[in-house]
Amino acid sequence: MKRLILLSLLCLSFLGHAQTDDAEQIKEIYETALTDDKAYDWLNHLSNQIGGRLSGSVQAQQAVDYTKAQLDSLGLDRVWLQPVMVPKWVRGTPEFAYFETSPGLSTNVPICALGGSVATPLGGLKANVIEVKGIEDLKKLGSEKIKGKIVFYNRPMDPTLIDTYSSYSGCVDQRYSGAEAAAKFGAVGVVVRSMNLRLDDLPHTGSMSYGETAVSDRIPAAAISTNGAELLSTTLKLNPETKFYFKQSCKQFDDVESFNVVGEIKGSEFPDEIMVVGGHLDSWDLGDGSHDDGAGCVQSMDVLRLLKRTGYKPKRTIRVVLFMNEENGLRGGNKYAEVALQKKEKHVFALESDAGGFTPRGFSFDCSAANLERVRGWKNLFEPYLIHLFVKGYSGADIGPLKEEGMVLAGLRPDSQRYFVHHHAENDTFEHVNKRELELGAASMASLVYLFDKYGVLPTKKIKG
Amino acid sequence: MKRLILLSLLCLSFLGHAQTDDAEQIKEIYETALTDDKAYDWLNHLSNQIGGRLSGSVQAQQAVDYTKAQLDSLGLDRVWLQPVMVPKWVRGTPEFAYFETSPGLSTNVPICALGGSVATPLGGLKANVIEVKGIEDLKKLGSEKIKGKIVFYNRPMDPTLIDTYSSYSGCVDQRYSGAEAAAKFGAVGVVVRSMNLRLDDLPHTGSMSYGETAVSDRIPAAAISTNGAELLSTTLKLNPETKFYFKQSCKQFDDVESFNVVGEIKGSEFPDEIMVVGGHLDSWDLGDGSHDDGAGCVQSMDVLRLLKRTGYKPKRTIRVVLFMNEENGLRGGNKYAEVALQKKEKHVFALESDAGGFTPRGFSFDCSAANLERVRGWKNLFEPYLIHLFVKGYSGADIGPLKEEGMVLAGLRPDSQRYFVHHHAENDTFEHVNKRELELGAASMASLVYLFDKYGVLPTKKIKG
Repeated sequence: MKRLILLSLLCLSFLGHAQTDDAEQIKEIYETALTDDKAYDWLNHLSNQIGGRLSGSVQAQQAVDYTKAQLDSLGLDRVWLQPVMVPKWVRGTPEFAYFETSPGLSTNVPICALGGSVATPLGGLKANVIEVKGIEDLKKLGSEKIKGKIVFYNRPMDPTLIDTYSSYSGCVDQRYSGAEAAAKFGAVGVVVRSMNLRLDDLPHTGSMSYGETAVSDRIPAAAISTNGAELLSTTLKLNPETKFYFKQSCKQFDDVESFNVVGEIKGSEFPDEIMVVGGHLDSWDLGDGSHDDGAGCVQSMDVLRLLKRTGYKPKRTIRVVLFMNEENGLRGGNKYAEVALQKKEKHVFALESDAGGFTPRGFSFDCSAANLERVRGWKNLFEPYLIHLFVKGYSGADIGPLKEEGMVLAGLRPDSQRYFVHHHAENDTFEHVNKRELELGAASMASLVYLFDKYGVLPTKKIKG
Repeated sequence: MKRLILLSLLCLSFLGHAQTDDAEQIKEIYETALTDDKAYDWLNHLSNQIGGRLSGSVQAQQAVDYTKAQLDSLGLDRVWLQPVMVPKWVRGTPEFAYFETSPGLSTNVPICALGGSVATPLGGLKANVIEVKGIEDLKKLGSEKIKGKIVFYNRPMDPTLIDTYSSYSGCVDQRYSGAEAAAKFGAVGVVVRSMNLRLDDLPHTGSMSYGETAVSDRIPAAAISTNGAELLSTTLKLNPETKFYFKQSCKQFDDVESFNVVGEIKGSEFPDEIMVVGGHLDSWDLGDGSHDDGAGCVQSMDVLRLLKRTGYKPKRTIRVVLFMNEENGLRGGNKYAEVALQKKEKHVFALESDAGGFTPRGFSFDCSAANLERVRGWKNLFEPYLIHLFVKGYSGADIGPLKEEGMVLAGLRPDSQRYFVHHHAENDTFEHVNKRELELGAASMASLVYLFDKYGVLPTKKIKG
């Protein structure tokens, strides 16, 4: 019994000691992030010297070159480009739209083409409008009421949900599949209320898909600002015969070659166990992609820099991956997973930051219950940094294809209240990123990577059959 | 034994039921705040129609009139103005400053007078500069090195502290007492690095005091922007003979009458137990005082509105107090406490919001351990709203004078990362307040008030002597 007590005491003292070491390492990570800053400078370059980085654009290539050079300068063990073919969609001349209550009596409204949309006819498209709250309304209305019209999807994001991503999830089907659905009922175009919780004048773009729709049956799709949507909706109530006109000249070109940018620190004990941290390098073209996802890229780069700067030698291989083409194809994420499979690489952990550069609140995890328990055991290490959220949930689009039994997939969860004010709109710009908030995110990510590297990912228990 | 189990089960079921009721009430509070919005409109008026509300100014009076009228419209049981004499300090013509490395070779830098400072001589003040990191440096230097010079306080806020208020506390003595201290060593003026964690071009004002310094010995005090401070510091290293010139025409007038704005809902069971929720209506004059503390005022007003809108009938008297003159005198807070004492009012609880309108993270409490335990028992009710912080600590300046054994004093703790970018500077403006963040703060406050009203404040146990 005495022995047992002694052993327990030793264990406790060891645990206590380990926690102190961890607390000190994590403190150093945060202090380095907040003083010896690099992430914000990188983001400044990506945002203000390069700008929006749509897949296949010159800016996307500039971003590949720039981030590779920056990773080269960090003294990592290896930095390389991973080729990937990406779609090239181009917005063309700025879109234009108005609605007309009677000939000559028109009101301009701000719109933008959805990513992947076809153009309108050269002279634009004018038609009557039918307002719906969602795709499910189309069936009730039927072809008779939809044919020849522009379908106006106007379901707003739910303001009562605290997590604004949930509000987004509850609405984004209108944007993604609205054109495909409406075309089946003979609509000639769709206009979708912007995914924005705020009432303002900025249209928010984003990806859409025609699914199986034949090329000849594809109809143009645009987003309208939330204020524009409210105005149009009220106008339609007063005058259901209101016509909507819009003109967009966007175009899909052949796929072009681009790259994922990858860098790694080789593990000292388990070099074959790979831990990935990443964001996506491409962005939409309206803003400069500072929050989505320049922030996630520079934070991910900073994770490796912070581990090096604080003198930590990882046991496992820590890899930063800046994925190309998350926004309109996910080709980078798919390619990375495909190559990993070909090379029989063993990924044990992946963390993505793709929810804005705001104050970090915690992480969501797609992993086994045992690993989630393990993370929750580290809660007190994160508490001094006001990181409270350790929940089961979505990780990230780019790391999704890597998913495998036994892996830990995680997503950084920054404060979400301001995100959809900027998401995919022209005001996703550098000045809306706060330096400290960005740095706190990078430090939180580095701390989680440190802990999982040091203590490992728990293997999934085989259930006896 | 059986009886005990039965009783326990009953208790548990009752507790479970109570928690469900509470969860529902709180959900309704949040949903109402996020949809049936009023706080943001009020703030818009305070900020954009009225603007900066320095004590004794016309704008401060407009703010009194406006908020009283708004409270009148809420159907409270009583709304009134509580007279209070406040200091009237006026900035005068915009300040001007430069430093000069040799005659004619000068560089302009952005400064502003500190609140309460005397003016420079009419033609301005030019003198050599001595840079220090804090008041404690003055003694080491002694009169010989300080006499006839301008003392330049240049200790930056510590960027490694996660709670930026701690960084502020660690620096603000330079601003508040720097002039008093320097005058003792024969300095002719002081220039203080702005309390800002960001490097930018905006000077941040704030209160200062001459303490016991005789009127004839008072020296002018100004804040310089953080970029300006860096520039001046580097210049002084290159050329210690650099002279600093500044001119400010601020002036202190006689005290004038102003008001605290008060409104209340009478308690149904314990009308004599008063619970206060408040912010301060005055602000500095450089910006429009949106974060400091327009946000706290409209949130406090919204607490009463939200309780009414959700149909909750408070047991205790819930009082909103918009305090006048927090920034440069605390006369409103002192007067309110003084009148409460005169009238033998029993205050059991006070909550202040005076830390910006950012995403709420929780509350800090100045109260007994038992009451803090009680709050922590409500943690799970707040978790769905991402309110995690329930710590012992500072409550608020205005409610401080109310403090009495047995009371619960609390302060809303919003995210602090962006606060000192705006605090007391010309960019403390409406567009930097996010509507949802503001509303979440109001809902969090209303929920805390609801719980303390329903369950009461625990009495302090008398320790047997």
